[in-house]
Amino acid sequence: MPTALARWERRTEWPLAGVASCFLAAYSVQVLVRPVGIFTETTEAVILASWAAFGADFVVRLCLAERRGRWVLRHLHELAIIALPVLRPLRLLRLVTLVAVLQRAVGGAVHGRIVTYTAATTSLLIYVASLAMLDAERGKGGRIQTFPDALWWAVTTITTVGYGDYTPATPTGRCVAVALMLGGIGLIGVVTATLASWIVRRVSEEEDAQLATKAQIQDLLREVRDLREQVRDLEGSLLGEQSRTR
Amino acid sequence: MPTALARWERRTEWPLAGVASCFLAAYSVQVLVRPVGIFTETTEAVILASWAAFGADFVVRLCLAERRGRWVLRHLHELAIIALPVLRPLRLLRLVTLVAVLQRAVGGAVHGRIVTYTAATTSLLIYVASLAMLDAERGKGGRIQTFPDALWWAVTTITTVGYGDYTPATPTGRCVAVALMLGGIGLIGVVTATLASWIVRRVSEEEDAQLATKAQIQDLLREVRDLREQVRDLEGSLLGEQSRTR
Amino acid sequence: MPTALARWERRTEWPLAGVASCFLAAYSVQVLVRPVGIFTETTEAVILASWAAFGADFVVRLCLAERRGRWVLRHLHELAIIALPVLRPLRLLRLVTLVAVLQRAVGGAVHGRIVTYTAATTSLLIYVASLAMLDAERGKGGRIQTFPDALWWAVTTITTVGYGDYTPATPTGRCVAVALMLGGIGLIGVVTATLASWIVRRVSEEEDAQLATKAQIQDLLREVRDLREQVRDLEGSLLGEQSRTR
Amino acid sequence: MPTALARWERRTEWPLAGVASCFLAAYSVQVLVRPVGIFTETTEAVILASWAAFGADFVVRLCLAERRGRWVLRHLHELAIIALPVLRPLRLLRLVTLVAVLQRAVGGAVHGRIVTYTAATTSLLIYVASLAMLDAERGKGGRIQTFPDALWWAVTTITTVGYGDYTPATPTGRCVAVALMLGGIGLIGVVTATLASWIVRRVSEEEDAQLATKAQIQDLLREVRDLREQVRDLEGSLLGEQSRTR
Repeated sequence: MPTALARWERRTEWPLAGVASCFLAAYSVQVLVRPVGIFTETTEAVILASWAAFGADFVVRLCLAERRGRWVLRHLHELAIIALPVLRPLRLLRLVTLVAVLQRAVGGAVHGRIVTYTAATTSLLIYVASLAMLDAERGKGGRIQTFPDALWWAVTTITTVGYGDYTPATPTGRCVAVALMLGGIGLIGVVTATLASWIVRRVSEEEDAQLATKAQIQDLLREVRDLREQVRDLEGSLLGEQSRTR
Repeated sequence: MPTALARWERRTEWPLAGVASCFLAAYSVQVLVRPVGIFTETTEAVILASWAAFGADFVVRLCLAERRGRWVLRHLHELAIIALPVLRPLRLLRLVTLVAVLQRAVGGAVHGRIVTYTAATTSLLIYVASLAMLDAERGKGGRIQTFPDALWWAVTTITTVGYGDYTPATPTGRCVAVALMLGGIGLIGVVTATLASWIVRRVSEEEDAQLATKAQIQDLLREVRDLREQVRDLEGSLLGEQSRTR
Repeated sequence: MPTALARWERRTEWPLAGVASCFLAAYSVQVLVRPVGIFTETTEAVILASWAAFGADFVVRLCLAERRGRWVLRHLHELAIIALPVLRPLRLLRLVTLVAVLQRAVGGAVHGRIVTYTAATTSLLIYVASLAMLDAERGKGGRIQTFPDALWWAVTTITTVGYGDYTPATPTGRCVAVALMLGGIGLIGVVTATLASWIVRRVSEEEDAQLATKAQIQDLLREVRDLREQVRDLEGSLLGEQSRTR
Repeated sequence: MPTALARWERRTEWPLAGVASCFLAAYSVQVLVRPVGIFTETTEAVILASWAAFGADFVVRLCLAERRGRWVLRHLHELAIIALPVLRPLRLLRLVTLVAVLQRAVGGAVHGRIVTYTAATTSLLIYVASLAMLDAERGKGGRIQTFPDALWWAVTTITTVGYGDYTPATPTGRCVAVALMLGGIGLIGVVTATLASWIVRRVSEEEDAQLATKAQIQDLLREVRDLREQVRDLEGSLLGEQSRTR
């Protein structure tokens, strides 16, 4: 039976992905459109509401956890995302969970799932980092002043190319950049590892001397068990003969 | 029996590689030589004809596909290459198919094939990206104004070195750069993965404790079957004795 | 029984980690706070004392080693760290041992241990390299003049992004940078390798045809031994019959 | 029996490594010291003599090869190194062979050998590329004008960091840079792959369910053969009884 925590997490998966989508929409509007008057207040309200939802979810999960100290230690990154305004855009990573949920429904092989997951996470990371960078750098005298420039900067950073034609100058912007660089290391790692796994499999498939499989060992086991049965029968018939000759 | 779609794809493999070669020649001439008068029209005509050929091939394959919705989803990148003029140079990636076809004829081990394939794709990608970048940036006030500079930029980008001495300034040029960066991540991934696969194999070859192979399990199975036969013979001779003593 | 050298190394593990912590504190204060008067002398004294402790440890281990020539060859990097003032900050890598010791006490799977170890080493390397870079470059006319800038430079370098907005200009600074770049190559390598190992395992877990395991082979072996016992009993009963009929 | 070509290659291994060492010394002196008068002529003579030696070796091996067309195709890179003056520094890669020869004499595990080989090749590549870059760029108006700057540029390039504070401006310098970048991709690949192989092995060592080894299968086979022997003996004693009772 799943624990109360696991049940809560399964039930809130979709609602929280919805909250993250609303947050993404409101944050995008706020940064890209820069609304005035009533619209500013609306987007601010949506962002505040989504923050409250994530905070409430964190508190509920903390209460449901069995070993709270250990649970907090393992979810320190979530606490940081909720508590620090600078890490606010990272709340959108909740949408990655959405990809995972959708994929679980569809199914598929490990390699395919990793590819979809990586592509979705990378795209989301680039988009969110560009928004956050633009939000942090605009009007601060840095070079990144438009969304296309921020996108261009994000791609050159996550691929670790790093031309240096656009670089962040504010502390907030640099924090966003560091998150994106770590994402880049991870991206290269996942791409390489998936390819390595695929090549290792292709090579081993082509090898003449294939490894013994579970199924083959079970065939062998069945054979030996049949043999034991046969020997038992032989013994039985021998004993029958003995009783007859006695 | 192969489907109609598979038959069509096998038959059009060579003709389409030929079309891609013509496109490569015409595009190279257009960008590098910048012909005037009748020559401009000729190269334009060849590029238009190759575009029509790829478009027709896409339509025919769409008609032959069994589950069209799913087929389109899986070939969205081809649709994008045909529909968007910006992605025009990517049509040349059809030439990679040529490498694959040639290699299938020659044969060879997995590692060797991956090396040839990677080298060919990377060279083609660098050449095409340099052409496309020069086409996009020339006369737009950017730093990339000659083909050698474009080549130099392409190599620093695909290896993720990214000096930043030459960077694209136009949106089209940046799209080309993003494609090249993704190619670079893939290049590093393939090189690393192939090396990893090779090292893993070398290490496991040197190990004393080698894994059981299919052949060895079969030897063992034969041995056990012979034993069963022997026991059956024994039983037979025992029964013969019983009938004689009875 | 462990050798005298192994016993010495186990006993000095914690004291030397403590010495490294004191060195880290004194070095941080010296570079970041730039104390005056009595405080300068105190930090200098701590740094000198930690150097003496590491030197004494090296000499003791050299004396305890069985094959001294080979031992020195294998610990040349430690000799260099002690003898060359430029490599002074690398003494802090002794703290990585502390992570190893703590982790050995806690236990855990290989993957988890590698992740903790990599995160701790990378953080320490970035912090120490930033300190050393600031120490080397400050007041020399280079661009790196504050600790946040040094940290930003260190992160862009270890992730191999290399924007080039901040670069070292002094020979000492460049030596620090080279050490950090090598650390970056190692970081990418470890991340990729851990991911590859994890993916390879996930893929092989999902495969239907699993490899034969030691346990299964032992089940089979037990089965065959039982059979031999049975045949021996059969032989015994047959001989008994023979002696009775004789 | 080894072919005439294999015998020639084994015999010329050491002499050619010596020629490469002389070339390295002469080339270093020529680039770094820039000798005048008689010394210029001496270094020029040594470089010319080493070129003649490599050329002669290539011709002899071509004559000894069994299938010359295929041999030339497989050694095109050597032909290019001998024929093109730009690739002259690459002749030094012959020294890598020296590392291989020394290591073969010493022995050791696969991982250790790969580490030594990679470290030696990378160091040699960085040194030679710095020399070649300085030779190409000096006095041409580029930023690389001293050997320390060339070394710094080489390290930032091979680690794919690519700050861009020093970049080659001449075509020759850029060719050197491309070779170094490819070396960098290879370096990252080898480091990652070696780590991956090591981690995969560590993880599989810790697993409870270990794979069946050749040795275990042979134990099992011996057991089954003993059993067959036993059954044969049983059959013999049964036949003996039959002949006695008959």
